[in-house]
Amino acid sequence: MSAVLPSFSTWLGARAAHIEHVLDKEMPQVDIIPARLHEAMRYAVLGGGKRVRAALVYAAGYGCADNQSGNPAFERALDCAAAAVELVHAYSLVHDDLPCMDDDSLRRGQPTVHVRFDEATALLAGDALQPLAFDCLAQMPVAPEKIVQATQTLAQAAGSLGMAGGQAIDLESVGKVLSQDALQHMHSLKTGALLSASVMLGGLAAGADGPQQGALTRYAKAMGLAFQVVDDVLDVTADTSKLGKTAGKDAAANKPTYVTLLGLESAQIMAKKLHREAIEAIAPLGESGRYLAGLADFIVLRDH
Amino acid sequence: MSAVLPSFSTWLGARAAHIEHVLDKEMPQVDIIPARLHEAMRYAVLGGGKRVRAALVYAAGYGCADNQSGNPAFERALDCAAAAVELVHAYSLVHDDLPCMDDDSLRRGQPTVHVRFDEATALLAGDALQPLAFDCLAQMPVAPEKIVQATQTLAQAAGSLGMAGGQAIDLESVGKVLSQDALQHMHSLKTGALLSASVMLGGLAAGADGPQQGALTRYAKAMGLAFQVVDDVLDVTADTSKLGKTAGKDAAANKPTYVTLLGLESAQIMAKKLHREAIEAIAPLGESGRYLAGLADFIVLRDH
Repeated sequence: MSAVLPSFSTWLGARAAHIEHVLDKEMPQVDIIPARLHEAMRYAVLGGGKRVRAALVYAAGYGCADNQSGNPAFERALDCAAAAVELVHAYSLVHDDLPCMDDDSLRRGQPTVHVRFDEATALLAGDALQPLAFDCLAQMPVAPEKIVQATQTLAQAAGSLGMAGGQAIDLESVGKVLSQDALQHMHSLKTGALLSASVMLGGLAAGADGPQQGALTRYAKAMGLAFQVVDDVLDVTADTSKLGKTAGKDAAANKPTYVTLLGLESAQIMAKKLHREAIEAIAPLGESGRYLAGLADFIVLRDH
Repeated sequence: MSAVLPSFSTWLGARAAHIEHVLDKEMPQVDIIPARLHEAMRYAVLGGGKRVRAALVYAAGYGCADNQSGNPAFERALDCAAAAVELVHAYSLVHDDLPCMDDDSLRRGQPTVHVRFDEATALLAGDALQPLAFDCLAQMPVAPEKIVQATQTLAQAAGSLGMAGGQAIDLESVGKVLSQDALQHMHSLKTGALLSASVMLGGLAAGADGPQQGALTRYAKAMGLAFQVVDDVLDVTADTSKLGKTAGKDAAANKPTYVTLLGLESAQIMAKKLHREAIEAIAPLGESGRYLAGLADFIVLRDH
């Protein structure tokens, strides 16, 4: 974290607090029937995480329309898009933790949703978070055709050629040796698709022009990949206490990772190379791209 | 079925064959990676069912814009909406059949998705079908603001204040005595919300005006409820062989139904009353409402 500018850390913390507030308002309160389902949904979504995906939405939005910062309609569009990606991310964690998937009982140090509630409620909570995400997008105060584009972007990122597809490939790959191409494809779907969609939705909310969209696309591609490479590196280098999840778990589960494939040192070099590519990609955005640059630093230089 | 006009049965069969073809094209082929996930998605969606929800989309669409019938853009809009509701319905069946929910091993006489594949694949197949539904809606060749409305309609019908919420209430109500109001609320979410959304999406695709939307809303409300009342009646009156699922199952599971609540005769009278309300609701649509009328007959007078 030392290499991340203090001002960026402050911004990121403030964004995390802000999206928490937005999500709190977008989700039905626990006194609305079915109360237990709403309690589970709120438990799954609120109270934590680094909110990297939401931050990517804001960073990309300000990166393309810095002068709109503070404009209520623009801020609201970013809030809707940021809430949508966080809801999809949260639903995916709830389902990933289920016994038939990773069978995890802890998430961020707390009991997972199916442990705290029950499996059926966890399943339904995830199922209900996904349409809520699309409902949030539909509320963006932008031209309707932008909402339609945003809907397609999120739907494709979440679907069988995106996040859910990546999960499926991941399941099939346990115990197998994957080529770097195959590993890259799996991660580009599993993690990269939603990270990338976050960046592109920020651009859509900001009315990004062609060159700006090009810059965002290149940035998103590099960062989506970097995120996973760094995750794999941290799985072997970080303390369990810092990581908030069991270190070495992927290796123990015999899952192919960038470290098992390339070795630790080459994986670290790859992460640095992707970081450089991301920074170069957003050079055309100039000073407006500072939050995107900060996120690149944050994602690649983090120690947990 | 004897009371359903032969011409309507022909229409309904032709629509079912047509939507099957549309769904086949909208879903990724099995040679696309992840192949097993796509195989499971196609298994879940294709090859069966009465396609009542798709039929409601078409019937409502023609009911409001009969003169547009055959117009390629109009037909495509109806196809996209019909595919979307069938995808959401199919995903809900896959998840409902999971061991942590109803734990069903057969659906339409075939092994359920988690039996034929595995639980994780069934979970992910359902998860991936839902965004595909929103992607289909986004492809409707109508004004973007209509797509946004359609997205909101479907998202709310699928979410915690719709289908997923109804499932959650259903889970909580096992072994409890519900009031008629509570039972009605549960079913209005669990089954009614998506049936109703199907009708409204047909109207949206057809550019329904205010009075037409009002007629559709009243029709949808009555039919959503009638569908469940008839289901409950059939659970005690029909043969297992005709029903395609185990007759008497709800009663055996100690689930509250309209029959346990009202008695068989009153439930049958209620179904007939709702049928009459539905037919009266669409009177303003005149002859264009004939398929909606046919569906009302089909849903209420069916024997399985």
